[in-house]
Amino acid sequence: MNEFDYIRWLRERTPAHARVVAGPGDDCAVLKPSSAPLLVKTDMLLEDTHFILKTAGPRRVGRKALAVNLSDIAAMGGRPVAAVVSVGLPRAIPDVNSGVQSLAEELYCGIREIADEFDTAIVGGDTNTWNGGLVVAIALLGDAGPQGPILRSGAMPGDWLFVTGPLGGSVLGKHLDFTPRVREAIELQNLVRIHAMLDISDGLAADVNHICEESRCGAVLIAERIPIAEAASKIHDNRSTLEHALGDGEDFELAFAVAPQDGRKLLDQQPIPGLTLFWIGECRAEAGLFLDENGRRRPLPPTGYVHSFA
Amino acid sequence: MNEFDYIRWLRERTPAHARVVAGPGDDCAVLKPSSAPLLVKTDMLLEDTHFILKTAGPRRVGRKALAVNLSDIAAMGGRPVAAVVSVGLPRAIPDVNSGVQSLAEELYCGIREIADEFDTAIVGGDTNTWNGGLVVAIALLGDAGPQGPILRSGAMPGDWLFVTGPLGGSVLGKHLDFTPRVREAIELQNLVRIHAMLDISDGLAADVNHICEESRCGAVLIAERIPIAEAASKIHDNRSTLEHALGDGEDFELAFAVAPQDGRKLLDQQPIPGLTLFWIGECRAEAGLFLDENGRRRPLPPTGYVHSFA
Repeated sequence: MNEFDYIRWLRERTPAHARVVAGPGDDCAVLKPSSAPLLVKTDMLLEDTHFILKTAGPRRVGRKALAVNLSDIAAMGGRPVAAVVSVGLPRAIPDVNSGVQSLAEELYCGIREIADEFDTAIVGGDTNTWNGGLVVAIALLGDAGPQGPILRSGAMPGDWLFVTGPLGGSVLGKHLDFTPRVREAIELQNLVRIHAMLDISDGLAADVNHICEESRCGAVLIAERIPIAEAASKIHDNRSTLEHALGDGEDFELAFAVAPQDGRKLLDQQPIPGLTLFWIGECRAEAGLFLDENGRRRPLPPTGYVHSFA
Repeated sequence: MNEFDYIRWLRERTPAHARVVAGPGDDCAVLKPSSAPLLVKTDMLLEDTHFILKTAGPRRVGRKALAVNLSDIAAMGGRPVAAVVSVGLPRAIPDVNSGVQSLAEELYCGIREIADEFDTAIVGGDTNTWNGGLVVAIALLGDAGPQGPILRSGAMPGDWLFVTGPLGGSVLGKHLDFTPRVREAIELQNLVRIHAMLDISDGLAADVNHICEESRCGAVLIAERIPIAEAASKIHDNRSTLEHALGDGEDFELAFAVAPQDGRKLLDQQPIPGLTLFWIGECRAEAGLFLDENGRRRPLPPTGYVHSFA
C-alpha cells in the first residue's frame, strides 16, 4: 500500500458529514463556514514518550491521539467538527503487527472509532514512513458552544472549583481509554454559567494554577474533597494517593469555576446523569495556590507533570 | 526552557492578528468566524526523510514546514489565516546547534518569518522532546479565495495546462527555499477563471495525472514546452533534465487548467509582474496521460515521487 492507495482507503471509509464540502484527496479539505467562533487545537503523540506501542497497540494510540484533542475542545465548551491527521510510520515494526500497512490501518481505525462517536470528520492527513518511531499529530477544529469559548481567564474570587471525576494513576490505563468530556461540557452550559474551564492534562495542582494565573486570582483546594481514582492506590511508590491525584496528570477530566450559587446548585442536584461533580475548593482574591488538609493550610506547589526539554 | 517557558516565549512573539480572538496559552485557540469556506491542510516533515537537519539547519526546516502548507492553500486559490505547530525535538542534538533550546528557537523563527510574510497567525502548538529525530507537523487554515475553493476536479477537455515556473532538481535547494505561490494564485483569479489547480509536489507527470483522474479526462504534455530548472542539469545521474522536470517533485509551482481563450490571454499578455506562465499542454476527453516529443506521441507514466510504505 503506497500513499495514494492509503488516501483511497481513507476516502472509502470517510462518511459524509454536513460540514464537509471536500474531504481527503485534494490539496486542502474544504469546510462550510459557521457563524460560531472557531476552536483550533493540535496535539502530537510520540512513541515511548506518550505511549508504548507494544503494550498499547496501534488502535488505542490512534484513539488517544484524537481523544486528547477532543478533550481540549471540551475544555473550551465546544463541539468538535473536523480533524486532520499527520502520521510518521516506523519502517521497521518489531513484532507488534504484521507490517506497516496493518499498523496504519489499526491506527486509523482507532482514530475513526472515536471520531464517529463524537461526530468528527477526518478531512485530511499526511502519511509518511521513516526510520524513526511512530508519531501521530492531529489538529482538530471545533465550534464554540452555547456560552462561546470558555477560557481559563474568567474565574473570579469566591468561585467554586469542580472536577468531573476521580484523579490520579491514569498511566495504568485511563490515559489511553478515557472518554473526553465533550457532551458533559455542553450539558453544563445548559445549567450554569461556566467562568473558566480546562481539562486536567498536566495534573490538578498545575492545571488549577493555570486557571489562577490566567484569571489573576488564587485558589484553595480541600484535600478531603479531591476525588482519588482507584488506580492511584495501585501505584506503589513513595507518593500518597493524594499526591498522585494532585500531580499525575493525563486524567482528562474537566476542572471548572462557577459562581457559588451555581456551585451549590450543581452540588445539591448533581444534574448530569451518569456524572458526579466534585467540589474541590474555591478561588480567592489573594494570589497563590493552597491546600487545606486536616484543617491546616499549606502552600501547594503547582508541580504537575511538566514536559521539560532543557 | 520547559514547555511553559516555551509557550510564554511564543506568546511574546505572537503579533496581534485581526482574526485571532485567543492565541497560544489556552486549551484551544479561538478564531473569528468568516463567511468564506474554510480550507484545512496538514503536512509533516520528518528528519532524514524530508530534510537533513545538519545541512538544512533548523531555520530552513521551520520555514519549509509552513511553506509546504502555504503552497497547498495557494493550490486551492485561498488565503492563509492561521496555523498550529506540533514539534518533536530530539533529546540529543549532534553538533547542529548549541542545544535543544536554540534548535526550538531557530525552528520557530523559520516558521515565524514566512508566517509573517503571508500574514498567517501561529495560534497554538504542542512541543515535545523525545529520543527520536526532529518532527514538525503543521496544520494550516485558510479562507477560500475570490473564485471559491479551486479543486483538482474541474478541468475540461480542451483546457490549456500551465505551470508557474521551471521544474526539476528541487532537491538541490528549492525544496527548502521556494516561495509558495499564494499571491500569484489570487492574482490569477482576478484575470481568468481557473478550472482546476494543484501545486507540484509529487512531480509534474504524477500531479497532472491527479488532475486527469479527478476531472475524468486525459492530457497531452508537450516536451519542448515544459520549463526545466537549471538545477535539473546539475544532477548527474542517468536521467535527462526533462525526466527530472517530469518526475522530481517538490517544485511547489502551481499547475492549472483554464479555457483555451483564457489560456491564450495569459500566454500573450503574461499579465502577472515577475511571473512567467508556461503553457505545457492540454486536456483531452480521452483518458490517459501522453507526452509529445519531437512530434511523436507516447504514453507518459505518472511516475512522480511516490511515498511508498509497503
